Amino acid sequence: MKLSSKMQRCGLSPMRKFNPYATKVKERGIKIYHLNIGQPDVETPAPFFQALKDFDEKVVAYAPSSGIPAYLDAVRGYYKRIGVELTRDEILPTTGGSEALQMTFATILDDGDEVVMPEPFYPNYATSVTLAGASIRPIPTFVEEDYFYADRARVEACINEHTRAIFVTNPGNPTGSILSPEQLKLMLDIAKEHDIFLICDEVYREFVYAGEPLLSGLQFPGYEDNVIVIDSVSKRFSACGARVGCVISKNKEFMAQVMKWCQCRLASATVDQIASAALYGMDPDYFEAVRAEYKLRRDTMVAKLKEIPGVVCGVPKGAFYVMCALPVDDADKFQMWLLEEFNDNNETVLFACGEPFYATPGRGKNEVRLAYTINAPDIARAIDILKIAIEKYNNR
Amino acid sequence: MKLSSKMQRCGLSPMRKFNPYATKVKERGIKIYHLNIGQPDVETPAPFFQALKDFDEKVVAYAPSSGIPAYLDAVRGYYKRIGVELTRDEILPTTGGSEALQMTFATILDDGDEVVMPEPFYPNYATSVTLAGASIRPIPTFVEEDYFYADRARVEACINEHTRAIFVTNPGNPTGSILSPEQLKLMLDIAKEHDIFLICDEVYREFVYAGEPLLSGLQFPGYEDNVIVIDSVSKRFSACGARVGCVISKNKEFMAQVMKWCQCRLASATVDQIASAALYGMDPDYFEAVRAEYKLRRDTMVAKLKEIPGVVCGVPKGAFYVMCALPVDDADKFQMWLLEEFNDNNETVLFACGEPFYATPGRGKNEVRLAYTINAPDIARAIDILKIAIEKYNNR
Repeated sequence: MKLSSKMQRCGLSPMRKFNPYATKVKERGIKIYHLNIGQPDVETPAPFFQALKDFDEKVVAYAPSSGIPAYLDAVRGYYKRIGVELTRDEILPTTGGSEALQMTFATILDDGDEVVMPEPFYPNYATSVTLAGASIRPIPTFVEEDYFYADRARVEACINEHTRAIFVTNPGNPTGSILSPEQLKLMLDIAKEHDIFLICDEVYREFVYAGEPLLSGLQFPGYEDNVIVIDSVSKRFSACGARVGCVISKNKEFMAQVMKWCQCRLASATVDQIASAALYGMDPDYFEAVRAEYKLRRDTMVAKLKEIPGVVCGVPKGAFYVMCALPVDDADKFQMWLLEEFNDNNETVLFACGEPFYATPGRGKNEVRLAYTINAPDIARAIDILKIAIEKYNNR
Repeated sequence: MKLSSKMQRCGLSPMRKFNPYATKVKERGIKIYHLNIGQPDVETPAPFFQALKDFDEKVVAYAPSSGIPAYLDAVRGYYKRIGVELTRDEILPTTGGSEALQMTFATILDDGDEVVMPEPFYPNYATSVTLAGASIRPIPTFVEEDYFYADRARVEACINEHTRAIFVTNPGNPTGSILSPEQLKLMLDIAKEHDIFLICDEVYREFVYAGEPLLSGLQFPGYEDNVIVIDSVSKRFSACGARVGCVISKNKEFMAQVMKWCQCRLASATVDQIASAALYGMDPDYFEAVRAEYKLRRDTMVAKLKEIPGVVCGVPKGAFYVMCALPVDDADKFQMWLLEEFNDNNETVLFACGEPFYATPGRGKNEVRLAYTINAPDIARAIDILKIAIEKYNNR
């Protein structure tokens, strides 16, 4: 039987591809420090669990394709606090930010089209873009330049007749880079001038560590037809397993087309939408505590990484990842060795290998993305293990 | 901004497209009898709600992309009872049967490919097939022949070099038709001889009213590489809002490719998988009671329909829909009139218009799919309203 050539062009996720091996390693009694996946260990706030207990419908019925009003209104309330007025039909609930990405790409892309985005980028973007028949046109960025990309010449060099959108992740994954208001406005202007979309993945919005202003693409009047925002409760409220997000746009034609996907798969989950609506009632102070903890973790990780000779990394301004180059030949080979042949006191580490974070061939082979989503002492220990491992690997 | 030509080729779901109008109608104080959507009113069994209350993880974390073991094992236990042995990696959890369809089509189809399926079919198949760049090649079926299609000549007439799969819904939606074991074996043989997949959407498996044997595509040894089963808790346990289903196949290469979609969107929802696992512990007696109630509803609807002059329908053997031709010029126009210009004692009806259930142009214009998922007295009243409406509409 023939399978889809588009699917065969896609790769497994570097965040998850080693999971089967990791399972076997744990069965051997080895402890793995998981730096591979952005799964916060922060407790999901109580309102979510209370909503589960309080769910009193007799039938767990389909939600409307357009979403459960309580959830839509919760999202509206959240955006209202940053001065963005949304109507219910400018928001569609999705099964996580992940599904918002899938449906957005499926709605705007045809075969041969391109999406311009800075690299390194979140690898799962590539799968959804590829399945829509299109490809990523990367704006190369470099740790030495703090992953800078918001420059007219650099961006416009990537735009051609196949371009349907510019895509920014703000704060960035894996780079942690943040667009200043002026930079975001530049991206909006470029998109508008070229009559293309600006898709803003803003799921890490609260994770900004030096108090920089972080604006949403929705906060700039005059770009309503161009802006599509991808949002989610996953990182904001440590509710990754709820699979609740949304796609937001004031472009009515876009939303009308996306609705076809929503109706096709009927609805997002009922209980999770209701429980997520409850999360949006959290006091904003909640974010202060979470941010402080993550800042500590980031600082711990970066300080420890800088102790390892040959490691190159920056200080990410947001999100919860550090992208770094390791002094090894091949991160994938190194990761396999870390699982199958190495342990330090019965402990080892798992990270996400860097090559799938790039569209430019050859980039990222010795790079890794490390998530600082475990507690600071464990982070310190994990990077100590990494240091020991690098030395052993290079002298094996 | 340009949007995807593939998405623009898709239609809105006939089950849901009138929802915005229906909302306005209700605001005017008119009651709508919903015959448009397969949303059972059967209470979701208690174990689901108990699982919500008992959920005691502190973090609502990502499930594995490969699924929560308790859910996978629940599905295995269910299939074991019909003699099908499955390993965990022959099952992938999905966000409803809907997502299982999306990912299956995305995994096996390329641009220009075809999927052979009997028409009338469930319209949302067309959207997912179209987004994968392919099209449906229909096997025309007719109420006068009891929607018969499992004939070698008829099926093979539809197969060509572009064909990647034959797709059957068993029991059928909207037809309620059921493949006998011999007919299912014939479909399997044809698929195997042509080296294509046989995709079996079996989500209505329990809804069979005359005790006919209903076999799964998985129950026939020797077709492991060809069979893909789409399954779901939605209808089986009246848990449509949980959005929990699965794709099942013993074709390892297919499952390896589908895993890319699973990793790309990270995971299915955690709480809903756990609650669904609890549902699978229900005593099989549960299904007897549900079936008896649905048989009553089917019989009520069919008897009432046959009282309306000019209505043509069969007696569906399974699922919970009746497909019927109405003596009106255009079902879509008639539905709009039913919402905007008609009521009988402040009541009206909503159904799913038939044209999108067909791939053959021109078919289904005066046909509708009626769901018998409301209680029998309401069904009787709804069809009485329909009778009155048809007469008024034709004499307006």
